[in-house]
Amino acid sequence: MSKEKFALGIDYGTESGRAVVVRLRDGKLLSSSVIPYPDGVIDDRLPGDPKLEPDWALQNPLDYLYVLEKAVPKALKDAKVKAEDVIGIGTDFTASSPMPAKADGTALSALPKYRKVPHVYVKLWKHHAAQPEANRINEIGRERNEDFIRIYGGKYSSEWFFSKLLQVVEEAPDVYDAMDRFIEAGDWLVWQLTGQEKRNTCTAGYKGMWVKGRGFPSSDFFRALHPRMENVIAEKVGEEYFPLGAKAGGLTAFWAKKMGLKEGTPVAIGNVDAHVAVPACTVTEPGALVMIMGTSICHMLLGNERQMVEGMCGVVEDGIVPGLWGYEAGQSAVGDIFAWFFEHGVPDYIHSEARKKKVPFQAILEKHASALKAGEAGLLALDWWNGNRSVLVDVNLTGLMLGMTLATRAEEIYRALIEGTAFGTRTIVEAFESKGITVNKLVACGGLPEKNHLLMQIYADVTGREINLADPLQTCSALGAAMHGAVAAGQAAGGYDSIADAARQMARVQKLTFKPHGQCHEIYDKLYADYRTLHDYFGRGANDVMKRLKSLKREIAMR
Amino acid sequence: MSKEKFALGIDYGTESGRAVVVRLRDGKLLSSSVIPYPDGVIDDRLPGDPKLEPDWALQNPLDYLYVLEKAVPKALKDAKVKAEDVIGIGTDFTASSPMPAKADGTALSALPKYRKVPHVYVKLWKHHAAQPEANRINEIGRERNEDFIRIYGGKYSSEWFFSKLLQVVEEAPDVYDAMDRFIEAGDWLVWQLTGQEKRNTCTAGYKGMWVKGRGFPSSDFFRALHPRMENVIAEKVGEEYFPLGAKAGGLTAFWAKKMGLKEGTPVAIGNVDAHVAVPACTVTEPGALVMIMGTSICHMLLGNERQMVEGMCGVVEDGIVPGLWGYEAGQSAVGDIFAWFFEHGVPDYIHSEARKKKVPFQAILEKHASALKAGEAGLLALDWWNGNRSVLVDVNLTGLMLGMTLATRAEEIYRALIEGTAFGTRTIVEAFESKGITVNKLVACGGLPEKNHLLMQIYADVTGREINLADPLQTCSALGAAMHGAVAAGQAAGGYDSIADAARQMARVQKLTFKPHGQCHEIYDKLYADYRTLHDYFGRGANDVMKRLKSLKREIAMR
Repeated sequence: MSKEKFALGIDYGTESGRAVVVRLRDGKLLSSSVIPYPDGVIDDRLPGDPKLEPDWALQNPLDYLYVLEKAVPKALKDAKVKAEDVIGIGTDFTASSPMPAKADGTALSALPKYRKVPHVYVKLWKHHAAQPEANRINEIGRERNEDFIRIYGGKYSSEWFFSKLLQVVEEAPDVYDAMDRFIEAGDWLVWQLTGQEKRNTCTAGYKGMWVKGRGFPSSDFFRALHPRMENVIAEKVGEEYFPLGAKAGGLTAFWAKKMGLKEGTPVAIGNVDAHVAVPACTVTEPGALVMIMGTSICHMLLGNERQMVEGMCGVVEDGIVPGLWGYEAGQSAVGDIFAWFFEHGVPDYIHSEARKKKVPFQAILEKHASALKAGEAGLLALDWWNGNRSVLVDVNLTGLMLGMTLATRAEEIYRALIEGTAFGTRTIVEAFESKGITVNKLVACGGLPEKNHLLMQIYADVTGREINLADPLQTCSALGAAMHGAVAAGQAAGGYDSIADAARQMARVQKLTFKPHGQCHEIYDKLYADYRTLHDYFGRGANDVMKRLKSLKREIAMR
Repeated sequence: MSKEKFALGIDYGTESGRAVVVRLRDGKLLSSSVIPYPDGVIDDRLPGDPKLEPDWALQNPLDYLYVLEKAVPKALKDAKVKAEDVIGIGTDFTASSPMPAKADGTALSALPKYRKVPHVYVKLWKHHAAQPEANRINEIGRERNEDFIRIYGGKYSSEWFFSKLLQVVEEAPDVYDAMDRFIEAGDWLVWQLTGQEKRNTCTAGYKGMWVKGRGFPSSDFFRALHPRMENVIAEKVGEEYFPLGAKAGGLTAFWAKKMGLKEGTPVAIGNVDAHVAVPACTVTEPGALVMIMGTSICHMLLGNERQMVEGMCGVVEDGIVPGLWGYEAGQSAVGDIFAWFFEHGVPDYIHSEARKKKVPFQAILEKHASALKAGEAGLLALDWWNGNRSVLVDVNLTGLMLGMTLATRAEEIYRALIEGTAFGTRTIVEAFESKGITVNKLVACGGLPEKNHLLMQIYADVTGREINLADPLQTCSALGAAMHGAVAAGQAAGGYDSIADAARQMARVQKLTFKPHGQCHEIYDKLYADYRTLHDYFGRGANDVMKRLKSLKREIAMR
């Protein structure tokens, strides 16, 4: 083809949605438009009014449609491409963020009578109020020796699909009865765009107990969870799932008009933000661990076979790239820990120096922390400010720092926090390698690697592995979404027939790489050994002090 | 006697000396004059010039004489008392702060040829460079099953007399040869005032291996330490020691004139700042634990018998009050930890609020921390920012904090630090009680309790014991020194015949007391159980991570 073709990628994050227009020939990003969700993360009060309980985190699904209306036309306009040259649309979404809907696709929360009912809204991935339900799922799952317990590294998370659904059943049975469908918001969005309820295998596999070729756990299991749920799959969830990059359908006339695209433009099956980033980071084969680094880290890895790796968030056949097993692991807070420190732990002398030099105080911290040698500060941290996702899968763990003396300075604490998160990543790398799933190098994307060169160097030194940076760094999910749109369109239409083909042409890494420094790596080997001892002591039941403190805290809050 | 009589107390602290004039009838403080030491704590460079190694802390003994010259006349003038009505002089000193002198009392450091030799200066109590020597003393002491090992709770400190002397022998044998005497600065000062070298039993007992009725370890022991030291007691240290409150001699004509006092005024035997504070806190019987609370805490307790209590700094017969066993324990950093936090851990929002309300930022922290309930923050700290004195006697331990989440705030950390130090005190209280030495209540003095009501309440809640505050709080060592001056003078001269008599008339506590709150105490019982588990895990060898980090830090610093 001589004429340039383009794909549209729409990336749904936690706070906003982003639309990008990407050139198919080389992956060049022609435009990028971000629209914050009008209702944002709803964790205090509903748009109506009722006050939410602690640990709730909801979203209004109409905000996703608002992004379609506002961001897409803007991106198309900025890119100066014509509707007919946009040959495919791909999306990606946070997960698991499920919601109730009627049989025609209407969000329950859009119906006036439900506006003030918290349970009708999207339960955002970081909704943490379904922990009792997750505990019950795990208890029953273990008793019955269900396969999902192993697939999810030993524990089904409170953040996931059925924990959230069980919470609805228990706390709002009327909502459960009123919903015809309980569906990931990402799949619901594709349903809106195409008129077809076609769910994706990725979210179902990683968050929804679905296994290729075997489907869901039996109705016996669901009945054991709750009698009302015996037939939940047939009644609310559905049995048919579609692979990544497949075409869900053509764009409806309604949305084609709203967005300024051609009716019938192929729309790819829904996908997950972290997963879609992997091929956008050039990775379509085993050996390279992709780290999507932001407030948290998602670790994505491909393998040739299924292994049960401790504390993995999941292992799903075709879950990232068709033909391979996709592994997902994660650290529940990384950038969030630094943000916490920036707000709660940075003393006056850092701010003063920053004012004097007219630079952000973070730059001062970074400068001083960079001047330290590995091990020089004598500090060690457990990076559990928001619990531990992999490999311990325990939200009730908390942060630890030791080694402080009267001479300890703020930049030393900052560096120890970075090192703690790097040790967390190394723990995940070693969990993979202990099962024979090789990690030869790391590829980073997301907001955190940008400018944070100290952080990247420490990760290289701690893991002993070279780190590449994706290009682009921060919009790689949106790029990945567009790449899947190109695959949904197919080569005949000017797209690609496989995600590997798309990656070869459209994805790249930066020239800047971070190589481990031998002497630093040696020192970090020592510190890491101590990290692991503490990790196991506090994380595996030898001393449950963190949990006792948390439960005492809860008890006192309730008095 | 109808005419009022007075005693002079001179209190030698770490940074300054203080002279007070006290009315004998009722202990009323008539004046108080503080003079900072011109050379202060010498921990970087000698007044001459040579750069000191890390961990050194020296003083210039001439600074002590400067205090006599400046502070005493000022205090006498402010008090408007006549020389003839000052019937006794008492002093107290930091310990162990020993120094070399010639046979006539001349400080070696005052001789021009030695000015640039670090080892001729006073080795201040917090000189920490004699750790290898302390290790050797402990090793040989244990091998030989020397009594002092048990008396000092299992370990002889690097801060004490013979560790510092052994450092001189090893590092500056010429200084060792040149000195005729190696003497506590407090005893040297009394020698200057009276012309008599009469050493006190208190410092010798707590810091110098001396035992009433038995004297020092044998010359075999000292030879084992170092061949040169075989006859160290006879040659440099002396065998005769004098009890607290005894008269060392009369004031010399020289110093009487310099200070504006009568020649021959009785001067009490030297004493230690913490020990002299005990009767000034009204305590002359067993049952009440005196806490001298400042940068660190000294815990002083009287008992009817000698018990070997774990990690005590010492147990000395007549060591505090004649006729009783005086126990000393301590926490090596308390106020220092808060000062560290104020400098290195207080974020912008606390400073902003303080600016807005025009109060010190410490007041904002205190206010928010006071609003928290026990256990509400979910944090727990090990208070080892400067090692652990009692009960673990280990300078290589470091601080720990755990329980942090993304919601943890600065005031919660501050409160956890206070609680950590309170748990440290409780550990000491329990060590005493486990040996049958009762602690019914606490009496606090020093700078820290002043205005720090939250701190005092937490100590009461954590220990489950009422706390009285001494009156005066901050000058109780100076008052105690004056009380000993009154005892040196004796009743016939208008003073007192015993320290108990003096305490009955001259010492008092404030009306304000802190009583433990039942519910808080219950919660703190739980937190304390976890503190103890961590204390033992990190402090007793199960996990020596703190020491590994420290030694790695040292190794890297030396590269």
